[in-house]
Formats: sequence, C-alpha cells, structure tokens
Amino acid sequence: MSHNQLDAKSQAWSALFTEPMSELVQRYTASVFFDRRLWKADIQGSLAHAEMLAAQGIISAQDWVDIQRGLQQIAQEIESGTFEWKLALEDVHLNIEARLTQLVGDAGKRLHTGRSRNDQVATDVRLWLRDEIDGLVALLRELQAALVRVADEHVETILPGFTHLQVAQPVSLAHHLLAYVEMLARDEERMLEVRRRVNRLPLGSAALAGTTYPLDRERVARTLGMVDERGEPQLCLNSLDAVSDRDFAIEFTAAAALIMVHISRLSEELIVWMSQNFGFIRIADRFTTGSSIMPQKKNPDVPELARGKTGRVVGHLMALLTLMKGQPLAYNKDNQEDKEPLFDTVDTLRDTLRIFVDMIGGERDPATGQRSGGLTVNRTAMEAAARKGFATATDLADYLVKKGVPFRDAHETVAAAVRVASERGVDLSELPLPELQRFHPAIEADVYDVLSLQGSLAARATVGGTAPVQVRAQLQRHRQRLAGLV
Amino acid sequence: MSHNQLDAKSQAWSALFTEPMSELVQRYTASVFFDRRLWKADIQGSLAHAEMLAAQGIISAQDWVDIQRGLQQIAQEIESGTFEWKLALEDVHLNIEARLTQLVGDAGKRLHTGRSRNDQVATDVRLWLRDEIDGLVALLRELQAALVRVADEHVETILPGFTHLQVAQPVSLAHHLLAYVEMLARDEERMLEVRRRVNRLPLGSAALAGTTYPLDRERVARTLGMVDERGEPQLCLNSLDAVSDRDFAIEFTAAAALIMVHISRLSEELIVWMSQNFGFIRIADRFTTGSSIMPQKKNPDVPELARGKTGRVVGHLMALLTLMKGQPLAYNKDNQEDKEPLFDTVDTLRDTLRIFVDMIGGERDPATGQRSGGLTVNRTAMEAAARKGFATATDLADYLVKKGVPFRDAHETVAAAVRVASERGVDLSELPLPELQRFHPAIEADVYDVLSLQGSLAARATVGGTAPVQVRAQLQRHRQRLAGLV
Amino acid sequence: MSHNQLDAKSQAWSALFTEPMSELVQRYTASVFFDRRLWKADIQGSLAHAEMLAAQGIISAQDWVDIQRGLQQIAQEIESGTFEWKLALEDVHLNIEARLTQLVGDAGKRLHTGRSRNDQVATDVRLWLRDEIDGLVALLRELQAALVRVADEHVETILPGFTHLQVAQPVSLAHHLLAYVEMLARDEERMLEVRRRVNRLPLGSAALAGTTYPLDRERVARTLGMVDERGEPQLCLNSLDAVSDRDFAIEFTAAAALIMVHISRLSEELIVWMSQNFGFIRIADRFTTGSSIMPQKKNPDVPELARGKTGRVVGHLMALLTLMKGQPLAYNKDNQEDKEPLFDTVDTLRDTLRIFVDMIGGERDPATGQRSGGLTVNRTAMEAAARKGFATATDLADYLVKKGVPFRDAHETVAAAVRVASERGVDLSELPLPELQRFHPAIEADVYDVLSLQGSLAARATVGGTAPVQVRAQLQRHRQRLAGLV
Amino acid sequence: MSHNQLDAKSQAWSALFTEPMSELVQRYTASVFFDRRLWKADIQGSLAHAEMLAAQGIISAQDWVDIQRGLQQIAQEIESGTFEWKLALEDVHLNIEARLTQLVGDAGKRLHTGRSRNDQVATDVRLWLRDEIDGLVALLRELQAALVRVADEHVETILPGFTHLQVAQPVSLAHHLLAYVEMLARDEERMLEVRRRVNRLPLGSAALAGTTYPLDRERVARTLGMVDERGEPQLCLNSLDAVSDRDFAIEFTAAAALIMVHISRLSEELIVWMSQNFGFIRIADRFTTGSSIMPQKKNPDVPELARGKTGRVVGHLMALLTLMKGQPLAYNKDNQEDKEPLFDTVDTLRDTLRIFVDMIGGERDPATGQRSGGLTVNRTAMEAAARKGFATATDLADYLVKKGVPFRDAHETVAAAVRVASERGVDLSELPLPELQRFHPAIEADVYDVLSLQGSLAARATVGGTAPVQVRAQLQRHRQRLAGLV
Repeated sequence: MSHNQLDAKSQAWSALFTEPMSELVQRYTASVFFDRRLWKADIQGSLAHAEMLAAQGIISAQDWVDIQRGLQQIAQEIESGTFEWKLALEDVHLNIEARLTQLVGDAGKRLHTGRSRNDQVATDVRLWLRDEIDGLVALLRELQAALVRVADEHVETILPGFTHLQVAQPVSLAHHLLAYVEMLARDEERMLEVRRRVNRLPLGSAALAGTTYPLDRERVARTLGMVDERGEPQLCLNSLDAVSDRDFAIEFTAAAALIMVHISRLSEELIVWMSQNFGFIRIADRFTTGSSIMPQKKNPDVPELARGKTGRVVGHLMALLTLMKGQPLAYNKDNQEDKEPLFDTVDTLRDTLRIFVDMIGGERDPATGQRSGGLTVNRTAMEAAARKGFATATDLADYLVKKGVPFRDAHETVAAAVRVASERGVDLSELPLPELQRFHPAIEADVYDVLSLQGSLAARATVGGTAPVQVRAQLQRHRQRLAGLV
Repeated sequence: MSHNQLDAKSQAWSALFTEPMSELVQRYTASVFFDRRLWKADIQGSLAHAEMLAAQGIISAQDWVDIQRGLQQIAQEIESGTFEWKLALEDVHLNIEARLTQLVGDAGKRLHTGRSRNDQVATDVRLWLRDEIDGLVALLRELQAALVRVADEHVETILPGFTHLQVAQPVSLAHHLLAYVEMLARDEERMLEVRRRVNRLPLGSAALAGTTYPLDRERVARTLGMVDERGEPQLCLNSLDAVSDRDFAIEFTAAAALIMVHISRLSEELIVWMSQNFGFIRIADRFTTGSSIMPQKKNPDVPELARGKTGRVVGHLMALLTLMKGQPLAYNKDNQEDKEPLFDTVDTLRDTLRIFVDMIGGERDPATGQRSGGLTVNRTAMEAAARKGFATATDLADYLVKKGVPFRDAHETVAAAVRVASERGVDLSELPLPELQRFHPAIEADVYDVLSLQGSLAARATVGGTAPVQVRAQLQRHRQRLAGLV
Repeated sequence: MSHNQLDAKSQAWSALFTEPMSELVQRYTASVFFDRRLWKADIQGSLAHAEMLAAQGIISAQDWVDIQRGLQQIAQEIESGTFEWKLALEDVHLNIEARLTQLVGDAGKRLHTGRSRNDQVATDVRLWLRDEIDGLVALLRELQAALVRVADEHVETILPGFTHLQVAQPVSLAHHLLAYVEMLARDEERMLEVRRRVNRLPLGSAALAGTTYPLDRERVARTLGMVDERGEPQLCLNSLDAVSDRDFAIEFTAAAALIMVHISRLSEELIVWMSQNFGFIRIADRFTTGSSIMPQKKNPDVPELARGKTGRVVGHLMALLTLMKGQPLAYNKDNQEDKEPLFDTVDTLRDTLRIFVDMIGGERDPATGQRSGGLTVNRTAMEAAARKGFATATDLADYLVKKGVPFRDAHETVAAAVRVASERGVDLSELPLPELQRFHPAIEADVYDVLSLQGSLAARATVGGTAPVQVRAQLQRHRQRLAGLV
Repeated sequence: MSHNQLDAKSQAWSALFTEPMSELVQRYTASVFFDRRLWKADIQGSLAHAEMLAAQGIISAQDWVDIQRGLQQIAQEIESGTFEWKLALEDVHLNIEARLTQLVGDAGKRLHTGRSRNDQVATDVRLWLRDEIDGLVALLRELQAALVRVADEHVETILPGFTHLQVAQPVSLAHHLLAYVEMLARDEERMLEVRRRVNRLPLGSAALAGTTYPLDRERVARTLGMVDERGEPQLCLNSLDAVSDRDFAIEFTAAAALIMVHISRLSEELIVWMSQNFGFIRIADRFTTGSSIMPQKKNPDVPELARGKTGRVVGHLMALLTLMKGQPLAYNKDNQEDKEPLFDTVDTLRDTLRIFVDMIGGERDPATGQRSGGLTVNRTAMEAAARKGFATATDLADYLVKKGVPFRDAHETVAAAVRVASERGVDLSELPLPELQRFHPAIEADVYDVLSLQGSLAARATVGGTAPVQVRAQLQRHRQRLAGLV
C-alpha cells in the first residue's frame, strides 16, 4: 500500500507498478483482520512520534494539534465500533493513517515523516506485548495466591507422594500444591526478564538504516515508558537489527510454553485425582461438562482443554523459530507471520490462567469478599491412598539405620517385610510387633510411630521438606512475595 | 450441553449439576466459533444416520421425512446467513440439533439415537477433511501443470545449477523447475494415501463402546461415500479407537508441512532470483508490494509470506503431536484442540497453492483462454551467471579422462587451471588454447565444445539428467500424468 | 576430501585450496562417527554401480573383479572390527574408497566414475532405511500379535471404559487392547507406503545434473531391488531433485513420531493402571526398577521411558523439517544433518518396539515355545473399578427409552437417580427396586439385567462395539492379518 | 540398581524383585553411556554432601577422610581412562558409588545418607550446566569481539542494505555486522539470566519429600558456589519441585535455539554473499570443502552446517517440551530423557560458536598475537551492488521533501524516475540533470550529492542509524562492553 495512494481503489504502490493486486493476493498478504488489535499501541506510538516531531520542529505545532485531534477521534470510532476497517488498506497502520489524513488532511500525511512501517510495526507490537505481559504477570501472581490459599488449609492433609505414579512417601497436600507455586514463581521471574527486552524502542530506525530527519529517539522512549528501573530510556541501538528482531516474540512464547507445560502438569494431576479410582478432589461443576449420552458424567473439561492447549502454544513457539530460521537482514515479509502465533499465545495463556485462578481458588463474591467454588478436597480418600503402597517403608529403613543397622541391610530387611505384607494385603503398620521383629530383632514397639503417616511427615524437616513446620515456612515466604493477594 | 436441555439459558447438563457454567468457561470450552465450518458435513452425516435409522425401523418414516425437511431448512438458513449461532450451545452439532428440534419437534430429538457427539464429531471432521483433500490434490496438480507449462518454454534456457549456492554445472531451467514437479507429485501421492485413511466411518461407535441399537454401519458408510476403490464400505472397526483416533489429522498435517517445505524451497529460490544481484526472474507486480518509504521497491511479498507460513504449518503439526502425546483412551476433551490447527493448515495450504498457481503460471483470461502474468524469465542474466564460477570445469575433467588421463590427475589439472583463470578474472573457455595446453598436453581445439554451456548440458544425457533430450522425456511423462491440465 | 588425495595427511581438496582444514572444522564437518553405520549399504551400492559400469564397458572386466575383491575384504575388515576409520577421511564413503584404492589400486579410483558423493549418499541412506523399515514393520506386527494374544484371554474381562478418565461404560479388556492393534495396523500401513517412496534410486544423478557417462540406471535399480510390485525399476527421475530430496527421511520420521505417540498413549495407560489406586495390572519385574532409597518401590521405568522418548522422535521430526525449510536446490551441506535424527529415530523405535513386544506378550522360551512374563491382569480390580462411577447409567437410560420414555426424560431421570445413589455411596444396581421405581414407574425387575456389567457389555453389539461377539470378530480379523504370528 | 547390591551380577533391586532385568531393558533404561560426562559434577556434589554430613556429625571424620580419598582416586582413574564403566551399574552415579565402596568400604555406603538419586541427578546436571554456560557466555563474547574487530575496519565500506532481499538503501558493512553483535549481546543477557536459575541446589530434597537427617543445605550450597551476587545460598525450596523441575534445561535450550537462529541468519548471509552472483566475501579455505567431482568448487560447508544444526537444537527444545508435557509430580523416569538433548545442545552450540569465532575473526598466532584467516571482504563488489537497485531513491524523495515537495508527490515523482532509469538500465545518479529536472523542477545540481552512496550513508545519523558517526558510537559502546576482548 502506497503511502501516497491511501485509498482502497488504487492498489498500485506507485507509478512503478503496472497492475493492481488480485483479491486473493490482497487477502493473503493483508494483516488487518488480525493486527487491528494493535490499534491502541499504534495510536500511542503515533502520538509519541508526533509530539517529538513537533518538539524538534520537524512538523508544526498546528500539525501536532491536528494529529492529536484526529487520533483521538479515531480511537473513539474504534472503541465505539464505527471505524470502517478496509482490507484494501492492508493493515492496522495504513487503516489508521488513511483515516487520519481524511480527518485532518496534510498533517496526517506528515505523521509518517522519519518513520517507516518497519519500525512502526516493531514498536506497536512491543508496546502491545509489554501491556499484555503486565496482565499475565498479575494473573500468574493471582494463581499462585489461589494455590497458597488452598495450601494454607491443607498443611496437615496427607496424600501419597508419588514417583513414577507409584506411592512413594506421604506428603502434605500443601507441600504438593506449593510445588506448583515454585514453578509459577519462576514463570513470573522469566516473564519480567522478557519484559525488559520487550520494552525497548525500535522507532527511529525507519525502513532499515535510520533516517535523515533529526529525531529525538530518547524523548519518544520516555513518552512511551520505555525506560529501565532508573528511568533511562531504552533504545534499539542498531537500525538493521531493530526492524528485523523478533527475539522478544520468541522468548516470550518460549516462556509462555513453559507456563503451559506447568499448567499441563497440574491439569494431569487434577484429571487423575478426579478419576473415580482416586477420588481425591472435585472441581466445581461449572468447570466440568456432562455427556449427551451418559447421564452420570461430570468431565473435567477445563483441565483437559488446558492440557491440550499446551500443544497449541508449543506449536506457536516452533512456528516462530522456523519462521526466523535462515532469514537474512533486514526486514522480510516472513515476519508478518509472527503476529498470529504471538496473539494466540497471549489469548490462550490469559484465558487459561484466569480460569485456573477461579477453578483452584474459587470465585470471589463482590458483596462479601468471600471466595467459593474452588477445589474440593477429599481428605479421607487421600489418606486412604497414602496407606496403600507402603508409603512409610523408607521410614522403617531409617528407623533401623538409627538403631545401628547398616542402610544396606535395613533396605533389604524392609523389602522383605514389604513382600510379606503385600502378600497378606496389609500395610506394614498393620503387621503385629512379633511379626515385624521376625524381620529384625532391633524393631521395638516405638516402630509404630515412624510407620504412621503423621510421624513420617513430621520427620522430613529439612529445608524444603514436607514436614508441617517446613511447609508453614514456605507458606510464609510466599505470602510475603504475594503481598496483598493472600 | 445437555442433550435434553437444548437451549441457551439452561447450561446445566442435567439434574446432576448444581451450577451453570461461567461465561469465561463457556468461551474456553466452546468450539462453535471455529467448528461451524463443519456444518455441511454435520448435516450430511446426520442425513445418512437418519436414513439408516429409518431403514432399520429405529425411527419412523415420518421422522425421517421431518428430519430431512428440518435439515434442509437449516442448510438454507446457514447458507443465507440467517442461522443464529449460539455460544451457549457450545458447538456446531448442538446448534444444529437444537434448531432441528425447534423446527420438527420430537423427530429432531430422535436423530441422536445410537450416536454420541464423540462419534459424530469424528465423522464430521473426516467428511470435511476428505473434501478438502480433494480440493488440495486438484491444486497440487494445477501447480504442477503451471510449472510444466513454464518448463516447456525453457528446455534450452541455461542457468547455473548450484550446490551450496555455488555455481556447479549448467542446467536447463526446465530441468530445475521439474525438480519441483517431482516434489509436488510425491505430495499428491501422499495426500491420496492420507485420504484413504481419512475416508473411514467412526459413526456407530457411540460414546466409546458401541451402542445397543441395531445400526447398519455399512449402509451409512456407503451413503457417505466412505468406500474403497472396489466400493467396499470402510468402517473404523474398534469403537474405542474410533472416537479417540486423530491419526488422520496428524498425518494430513505432516503431509501438509512437507508441501509447505517444498513451497518454502521454491520461494527461497524466487526471492534469491529476484534479488538485483541475480536478476534471473520477475514475478508479476500483483504478487509484490512497494514500500511506504522507498519509492523504488518491488518486494516479493508472496514468496516471503509463503516461506514464513511454513513455520505456521510445522507449528500446527507439533501442536497436534504434543496434544495426543500420553493421552489415555478413549475420548478426552484435549481432542477438541485438534480442530483449529487442522483448519488453519487447510486454509494456509489452499491459499498458498492457489496463489502459486497464478504466480508461476499466470492467470487465465476466461475470454481467450490465454494465460498471462506468470513468471518472467531473464535468459540473458541466467546465462551470464552460468558463465561465472567455472561451471564447465567438470566437463574439462571428463574431457581429459576420455583422453586417457586418470580422473585423479584430470581433477587436479583442472583445479590448477581454475586457479589461474580465477586470478585473471576469466572463464576457462576464455583461456587461449596454448594457455590451456600448458596445464595438460592432451588438450586440443575441440576442448572449447565441452567448455560451452550448451555442450555441457547436452552431454548429461543419463536418465533424469539435464540434457534437453532427457528434459523433454520428463515433460512428456508429466504431461501424461497431468492429463487435461497441460 | 579430494577424490585425488585420499589420505589423511593432505586435507587439501585440490590445487585450488591454500590451507588445510583445522581440526575443529574437520570434526564439525565430518560425519564418519555416525555415518559409518551405512557401510553395508555403501558397499552394496558400489557393487551394483561397478557391475553396471563393467556391463556398459565403462570399466574393464578386470576392474570389476578387483573392485569386488577389494570390497569383500573391506566388508570383512569392518565386520571383524579391524577396519581403521579415519576422521580425516570425513565420511564412510571416502573411508571405504580410500581403503579400496589402497587394496586394488586404479580400479578403486575408477569406481567413482559417473557418480558423485551427492547421489552416492542419497542411495546409501535409502538402501539402509529400506532395510530398517522392513525390520520395523516386522516388529510392528509382532507387537500387534502380542496384544492380540493377551486380548484373546480377556474377551470377557471387564474394565471401566473411560472418557475424560471418568468411568463411562464397561468395556472388554480385549476390546481396549485391540484399539491399540488398530493404531499399530495403521502404522504398519503407513510404513509400507513410506517404503515405496524410499525404494527409489538416486544413483546416476551425479553431483546434480546427471553425468556424461552412458550409465544404465535401471540395471542398477534392479540389482539393488529398487523395483515396484510388478518388478519395474524405480528411479528418481530428476537429478536435481534426486540429490536434494530428503522427503523420505521426513515422512519416515513423521510416521515414526506417530508410532511413538501411540506407544506413549499405551504407556500412559500402563502407568496409570499400575498405580496403587488402580492396581489393574502388573508388568514383569524385569521391566521395572526399584529405588535406592525406598525399599518398597517397583517403578514402571520402561513405559515411562517410552513415553519420554516420544519427545525425542517428535524433536527429530522438527529438526528435519526445520533443516529443509527454505533450502534452495540442489544439495547443500545442511543435508548432512539429516542423518543423526534419522538414525536415532530408527534406533529408538526399534528398541521401544522390541521391548514392548516382550513386556506385553512375554518372552518365548526357545525350548518349550511357551511365552511367559507378559502383562499380569488383575480382573478383580478391573471389575471393581467398573462398578464405581455408575458405568451402566447409559444402559438405564436406554432401558427407559425402550419402555417408551423419550430420551430426554430418560437421561434426566437417570441423572436424578445417579445423584441419589452417589449421595448414598452405592451403585445404581444396589438401589432396591421400589427406590428405582420412584424415579420412574416404568422400571421393573428386569432392570437389574441391564444394570449388570455383563448385560451392558453384551448389549453393545454394533460392528466395532465391545460386545464379546464383536470383539471375537475383531480378533478373528487380526489373526488373519497377522498370519503366522498369532 | 539397588543401593545395597552395588555390583554388576546382581541386578535385583532388592528382595522385592523376582527376576533380573533383561539385557535389552538394561540398555534401554541405562544412561551411563551418555551421563558419564557428569562425573566431575557428581564427585564435586558428593564431596560437598559428605563434607556437610561430617560437619553435622551424621558421618564420622574418618568417613569423610575416606570418602575424599576414594573420590580423588576415582577422579584420577576417570581422567586417565582406567576407570571401568559398567552398563550393569546403569548410570554415572552408581558406577562411582560402587567403585567408592570398593575402595573405602562402609564409608562409601554412608555417602548416600540423606540423599537419593533423584536429588543427586538434579544437582549434578545443574552443576555441569552452570559451568558449560560460563564457557558459552565466554564464546558469545568472543564472537561479538570478532565481529566488532571486522566492523572496525569497515565503517566506511558500503554495501546495499536489503529488505526482502531487494536493494533498499546503502548501509555500512560495520553497521550490518553490528546488528549481529546486538543479537549476540541479547543472547549473552539471556544466558546469564538462565544461569541464575540453574545455580540453585536441589540436594537435600531426597527422593521427593525431604529427609529425616539433619542436613545443612545452605552449607552445601555455599561449598558448591550456588550463591547469588550477594553470596546468599540459593536452594530449591520445595522438595517435590526440586526433584522434578526441568525448567532450567528447557529455558537453556530455548536460549540456545535462539542463538542458533541468529547463527543461521548470519550463515544464510555468508552463503548468499559467497555466491558468485554476489561475490561480497570469501571465507578462509579451511572452512570450506571441495567436490569429489567438480574441480572448481569451494563450498561454504561450515555456514551451511551451522544453518542445518539450527534444526537440531530446535528439535531438542521440542523434545524437552514434549517430554515434560502432562507429567505429574514428582520424579518420573521420563526425565532421564532430558540429558541427551541437553548435552547435544551444549556440544552443538559450543562447537558452532568456536568455529564462528575463528571463521569471522581469524585465528590468533600465539607468537605474534596477530590474527589472520578471517573474513575477506570485497569492497568493490559490495559497492557495485549498492549501485544497483536504486538504493538512493529514498534520498531523492527526502531531497524533494526538503525542497518543499509533499512526501506524497516526492515518492511518486521518484517512482516515475526509477521507472525511466530502470528502462534505460542506468542508476538515478547516472541520469543527466536536465533529465532529472523533467521529473521535477525543484531538482538542482546538488542532487548528485544525495544520490551518492556516501551522501546517503552520512545522512542517516539518527541514533542507531548507519551514518559513520553513529556506527563509531556503536563500536565504542561494544568495545566497553567487551572490555579486554577487542
């Protein structure tokens, strides 16, 4: 779309072109159907650019006034749904610029001075993504808070800790849930690091080589909040790199894929835990669906979909990496393909996080401030499961070691006891003392303390362990990190 | 969505549920926004199912008449845009079923007898994909035909064949283009194999275990054209597999990814060939765009976008593989996530192939039947490039071998000659005979025949080689394969 | 590596090069560490090429005798481990050629007449892969046979069929296992289709453009068994495509990825089924490992690793697609990177299939021919699980429908009954008749037949359904397909 | 492998197991073939653990002395190649532990007190990866330095800046190379952030739930240098998360994939630039290879392989994401599959960076300190190319704008001039003044200044632009960042 032919009927870029674009080509190359969501960022960027052009005397004060007025009207039109988007104008940028010129005449044309679509697009996407990251980080924190709240009530709720999905050792449900808080805390950390690299200004790089106009790029960066912690403006400092760099989209999507992998792990657990043979939890009905044929069904649709959507985001990451592979400098049209994967990644992540916040922690009643409708925990089923699978076998081995038995012999002794108990269909704690003593004479009546779930739990009191005292320390730490949310 | 509560205001699946779905959850789990494109297949499948139910006496003749009438009206409403799609009705299937019940009452409710959404969805997607594959195969053949037509005019046009993007040996442009025809012919072959596995009937598997109604599945398969070459009905023969199998979507997307990889290779060449330092070809203006800032630009947007869209389809394949990884039997909600990657793969592939058909072969004037606006070839630039880089050095070595020089010495001799010619900035054919003879006394005046581009070309006359006689044989073979198109 | 300097100390390609390769570069670019596994295919291809050269009179009969002798000795050296592989000779092809020249002198040098490494490599990989595919197809059939054998014993073993990992309807264990046989049968079908495209001859395409020697490519194809079902030789018919085509590697890896996805699904089920809360099966101890710390553990390491290795093969597919994206014609060195992913895919798949054959079906005692050590099924646990979760609720609804109740009301009625039974903690079949009748007066004493697991199973007798009669039909079909193995 | 049966002949884990592992299973599940590279980290971790056990009084001072002695001897054996690795001992950890027990008896057995293989493996991989990251960051800096050194010599070397591989505007070669320095600088930044999350201690988490022994985890962290900038020990603070977290491997591989994407972009440019039609550069012979058939070839093997290896690393990222998708807590055997992709990613990245350091910047002669053998730049070819494609058309438009012509008209005017010049086959600067003035009367003799490449370059003097003054500012900034290297 030619800068100088901003109307739909002429598709010629300029006198250089002998034929207009075909309709299919227009649709194939246009992006306005999906990039219109950048409109706010586009206007924000244009305002900052125009303000600077005026401050530098490149455009007149009157132009600046006109541009402001025009862009404000366009913002209103878009928000109210009256703005007419034209496919023939290819993208959000030309749609807005054409309308601006229609509204304010020559001033509109002067807005493009010293910039090209290459640096404009790059700036818009960064502004938009920065704001989305802020929203996602807030949601990551809310989800952590929801998990912390549930954990808070279940420090002493015991479920079997699994390795290999085999019963391993009893753990606190709170401890289990806080493992996910750790993952999400790392996700938050990563997102904030990505944000720093997103929040840099390409504008002023023009098509690829910089511009001949005396722009003040630092001023624009400041206006747009593209500054570091100390308030220093953050610029992309090489114009070729600035217009072709899509690292920020790739690293954002990589961080998003990792978040979805974490969500998929939690989902897998929720699904298994809801299965009748586990029966550990229920999620509220509004996150489940029934069956058109089986009247008894309550299916955990939301965790399943979230698990499935992991593939979607991983796919987007692969799309972006493939896209950039082998691209020479500087801007190539391939790069237009960065937007849909990026947009869909943001949407998928935001919806998933929002829905998990409610599904885990319940919804807040605005009147009472109370939350309800989160996870329902079946303590009885969890504890019953922890009694299967000889979860305290390690405790018996440790007991023997502390009685002076070498670990090697202790391990072997316990294995033999497990075999016998298994054949009888009872737990180790259900074997009578004389029976246990047949495996090793060092065993005394106090053995039943270590064979209890509570005893096992309390004994794992190293930093990061599942003992209630340690779990409470974790909770305290997270409450501070998530100040105001828990 | 409950089968028995097919209206928007009740989101309860049945008496089993105590709370309705939240709006966000509804949006998260609904698919009607993207699966409505299955409407034709859904109606087609329902008609075949109902016809069989009537033939088996499971529903009455009157029900069958009513269902036909109702579905016809729905088809008209959808085609004319008057059908009201409701998010609350979750997907295309329930939207159509609810409207049917509204239109024809109880008969509509009986349509779902002996089927569930699980086998219904699987059937709809297969019917839809089968028809899309037919369209894609036709486009693959058209693109081959377009390449063959251009090749036909350039059997004797010589360009440098590259390995490592270094000039290697002269080749015929037709030969070069026919390499892509080979790739696309394999793609066609693969798509037809995929089609055979797509064209199998899951309907009759019900939710997962089959149904208690006496369905005639073979009759339904025949009605829907799900038969093999000999007209035998093709059924999915295990109900658990039938409702959870997404292999067909994965293998289709894998075949599509490979097509896009081929397109990306061709695109890369078009882009390099259009670069001013090559200048081998031009594509018509309607497939290029200009720059808002640089008045001289004609950018090969279409090949670049196509190259970029390769990532998109590869990403979809990865999404589907990730989606299915580790899923237990039978249907899980994760599977709903198969549709968007699949739909977008089809759209991307179809648009890309269509646009390449025109870009390579030109558009057909309906009046004259003539095509115009395809690739423009610059023979002079191609031949000039073939004269760089000592493209006939191998021919000189072969010449010496035929004069009795061991290949080892011949190779070494030519390398020395190339070094000298390179230092002088001339081609081997530009070295005078005495000069050449200094490298080896066996060289005589006839050497200049083998050092010519035409001589080199004609000499490579093994089957599949670049000699015009062989290239014409290739053309002849493809013309037969593509009967009616070339 | 120069054809004419086949020794380690001279790394110069020819007189054209002024400096040798550095050691790191040598290591970076060499492939002999991983491509030496192609040695058999390389010798096989060389023998076929040399035989044809002699038949065409391009080399002498003596040369042909010498080459045979030399290659036979090399084969013996490699098999016995005395062959000295040299990194400096870069790849398997030059290592063998250099040794051949050492052994038989000039005849060895003449072997390379009319071929280049480009077509040689492509031929070798195809020959090697064809044989590997044959082995994999045999393993796919053995695994199907193993599943069929276990299924044969469990036609009437009932477990809960799950959708969404929620109890849905009772199914036969045989039916469940045969779902995997369907998947593997499709995998077999795909592999055989891939094989057809692998089994085509690139040799004779030389570096990229064909050769000036009068080769008989069809003769070579016949010698190498590269023929179709009717014995017609199968050639790559465009030399540029022939040396750069890696489609066959990509489509093989895509088919392999899908097999691994199927294995991952089966693995997930085995892992869940082995978890104490399910306790449906045990796998033999030799496929499990214990814990260095927890004496009671038996972890299903093999299914877990197999599930994990899915990622590995999916990653290789991604690597190959990325590799080929945007590559111009013809051969580029990038293509060397096709081998390791391909080789590792074959290894992973072969090991996984082999181990699953034993783990599912047991090992065969060579003396008695008996198999032992396969899956151990806990029928009691499976049936107990099928009694949870109201697996026969659909049957009650169907019962009511057959009594004339509209499906809508039947579904609702059953949902209400499920709710009550659920609150009481009993199954529907455990509610006394008067209680059931309170939900609907049409319910009579015969309702308990349909509420039984066996009744439910037997009723689903549509083609592909879980009724024993249908499952036996499936078994019969597979026994024929797998003739000789079951 | 049982803790208490640390020898090869007994594969039973304990009394619990009734049969040994088969050989194939052993190979399938063993990792010692690839994880032996962790040996240094394993010994380092064991020493830190033992030192703490002694300090806490959990083992005796004598045990600590014995363990030190034993581990030192093992380190010597491994380094000297005399250590006997046993497949039957499954992994690096058990191989070392078994040998230790052999050497120092019971003290060796006590080393495992309070740890399990789960936390031991996690610790070893982190220690190993941390050191590798340090090496990679150093290489990233060296490669930046190499680019800066070449750039330093080419501030005023002009080549065409491309967008869409079409000539766009003249740019400085230094500016172009510094775009890659920007990318690598971001890569360095990312790697350092990843390092922070790698450098955290899982040890002390035992199998999954913590341990009953009074470990001092902070002491171990300090000993191992797992501290932050302020010296605070960095612990994994949730034991379930600690043993199952593979985020660090995924985010490392994502960062590595992005580095390879950058390298692939640079490689693509080197390959295109070396193609005869560009002829912009040469790389030293030692990074190229010849052809066995074509005597004139010098192929850019190294950049091509690097471009190809991008797929490899992207594939590894895909493998790791797929691996972790849907994994429940805590450790599952799937996780063993994290190592090979991670190891190969490190190897590929390290070799690629090393080789690019030399290929771009040349090798340093240890005697003279001089570097030679880096990129050779053909200024003439670059400048000639910049004169094609009307690279200064934008400058002419800007010239007209500054003369008061609206940008719209200026753009159109220049497009018309380009069309005429194009038809005549001359550059804009080659049109005589009267000719130019026919397009617009405002054009005067000074137009030839802006139409010159140097004039165009100098005019783009915004921050980040290609004007020599700006490029020198970039160079200065990088020289400071890379202190000591440039």
